[in-house]
Amino acid sequence: MAYEAEIGQSINRLSTPVPVIDEDIVAANIARVQDYMDEIGRSFRPHIKTHKIPRIAQAQLQAGAKGINCQKVSEAEIFADAGFEDILITYNILGEEKLVELYKLSKKTKLSVCVDSETTIEGLAGTFSPEKALTVLVECDTGAGRCGVQSPERALVLAQKIAASPGLKFGGLMTYPRPDSEVESERYLARALVLLTGAGLDCPTISYGGTPSLFNSHLVPSATEHRAGTYVYNDRAMARSGHCTLEDCAMTILATVVSRPTANRAIIDAGSKGLTSDLLGFEDFGIITEYPKARIVELSEEHGSVDLSAVTGKRPEIGEKLRIIPNHTCVVSNLFDRVVFHKGGKVTRLETIAARGRVW
Amino acid sequence: MAYEAEIGQSINRLSTPVPVIDEDIVAANIARVQDYMDEIGRSFRPHIKTHKIPRIAQAQLQAGAKGINCQKVSEAEIFADAGFEDILITYNILGEEKLVELYKLSKKTKLSVCVDSETTIEGLAGTFSPEKALTVLVECDTGAGRCGVQSPERALVLAQKIAASPGLKFGGLMTYPRPDSEVESERYLARALVLLTGAGLDCPTISYGGTPSLFNSHLVPSATEHRAGTYVYNDRAMARSGHCTLEDCAMTILATVVSRPTANRAIIDAGSKGLTSDLLGFEDFGIITEYPKARIVELSEEHGSVDLSAVTGKRPEIGEKLRIIPNHTCVVSNLFDRVVFHKGGKVTRLETIAARGRVW
Repeated sequence: MAYEAEIGQSINRLSTPVPVIDEDIVAANIARVQDYMDEIGRSFRPHIKTHKIPRIAQAQLQAGAKGINCQKVSEAEIFADAGFEDILITYNILGEEKLVELYKLSKKTKLSVCVDSETTIEGLAGTFSPEKALTVLVECDTGAGRCGVQSPERALVLAQKIAASPGLKFGGLMTYPRPDSEVESERYLARALVLLTGAGLDCPTISYGGTPSLFNSHLVPSATEHRAGTYVYNDRAMARSGHCTLEDCAMTILATVVSRPTANRAIIDAGSKGLTSDLLGFEDFGIITEYPKARIVELSEEHGSVDLSAVTGKRPEIGEKLRIIPNHTCVVSNLFDRVVFHKGGKVTRLETIAARGRVW
Repeated sequence: MAYEAEIGQSINRLSTPVPVIDEDIVAANIARVQDYMDEIGRSFRPHIKTHKIPRIAQAQLQAGAKGINCQKVSEAEIFADAGFEDILITYNILGEEKLVELYKLSKKTKLSVCVDSETTIEGLAGTFSPEKALTVLVECDTGAGRCGVQSPERALVLAQKIAASPGLKFGGLMTYPRPDSEVESERYLARALVLLTGAGLDCPTISYGGTPSLFNSHLVPSATEHRAGTYVYNDRAMARSGHCTLEDCAMTILATVVSRPTANRAIIDAGSKGLTSDLLGFEDFGIITEYPKARIVELSEEHGSVDLSAVTGKRPEIGEKLRIIPNHTCVVSNLFDRVVFHKGGKVTRLETIAARGRVW
């Protein structure tokens, strides 16, 4: 059985492909971001999507985070069962099946959710009752163009509807902003706050988010908390955004060169089932740390095709193990049942990725 | 708990996102391809990567397939434990950890593997012994540009090395061809066959493969067997290749509209964790069967962003359930623990995707 790693063994003896996580980098990433949040006086709520592992979330809370952020009810179930007591689900929860699941979950932990429509509010209002009201935030689209109400005026309308629903409690505003949109996001949120106050509505939380421009969070003074996931491991996209350097990337995918069909081509055993097809604007699928000029140009499910034409000097040999910094670390965590942690290349622990595949 | 579907219930009551598989289309796809293989007198070896479910592979064998094809030792373990007795692993198996796993597996089932280098042959030769020799095929690159020896002459060299290794048995040639490359593939394979015969080597199997141009397999008369995976479910890419029509696609992903932030934008609860980021040359992430002019233009992990600007008439509403034909069905099977089968929209069974995540 693969991944039966012994504590202390070299990661180079692991059966590949496997994500390996550097304990020291994780600890430094957690500390650095929490220190910043403490410094600017902002609550911090890590998004568990990046690691999906209760023990890592525990470390984030121990560092000072106030609670956690999940995207789906099914993810939150894992963390509620692991004892987490303050979970924000940043998602419109809709439909009979989901509402039943949400209601069950609300008995286990302190839960809050987000909405951006009357339809979602009505479903929640029909499910919860005043004895155990559900906290509901309004999702605002401050520029990212995904979910969220399009104006502060609409945010007020939904906030009033929540406040008028006996089983619901208005919890505030939430946005998943476009990176580097602090000025326009602050303008939107500040305006919404004025409207809410004018309408006599208390707004306990304004939840801002994202890793790419996390260290600009102080430029959004209306926000009361920040949510972020990727910062815990970091990845190539976060390094490009300026949030971190490649040295701050805790996750690498250990892979083996399985074929060298031509002088300029190597095939590795990490394909889209190991690295995912997420390009995120890059033209290749990760950075091979040992051969930074090699380019992973194509993935099939179990093969990665590497173009070596720019590699001068030694080239990878069949059987050689390589470590790859992924474009996007969160999606890699969703592909593996377990992940190996290490310090300086020696295995420290195996962790089950408990919330992997929790998509519903 | 999600996906606790009852037999006979409507799939529209399932918690989304969830892949649903049409039993009738699967049965028709299996029959159609097996009929063709029977007609041209070719052995057929389905690749399990598309479904990863022993019961579906069993149906493929019952229809007339001779054995199955896996890509990884870990996948083959699942199928060996489920009683499958003829498994071809089309992969270079390398390194101490993998060779130990392969050796254990070889005691459970009739196994053959593929190689494209001396290094791989030497590892296998050091692991197996004449009392229980391992069947080894040479992988040939007949134009796809992934793994495989680059010439018939190199195929002969490796075949001779296999034949000269006491623990190994030369099993023939294997190629994963470029679609529509029948003429050049046949030329390569026929030439290799001449060389092997000239060297006194028997070549029991020439294994050809792929779904996209499967129905051209008769144009490769040197081949003795065909391998294919995707044909069992089919997908948007297979329809584009001309292998099938969209009506032959058995898998759809059932998703819910969770937000309608603007007139032209819908957000669905299937993101890259439900559909994968595989574009395969398309510019969007699948076909919404109910709104074929809507375009899934962007995915984050749990959100799909749908551009409705080309949709005339009725547009999807919040809470509405949609069925999406994925670009690439195989990768979707790797994202879910379970899949729901149905007949005409009524649930017939739930199947655990037993070999999901078996990447090592």
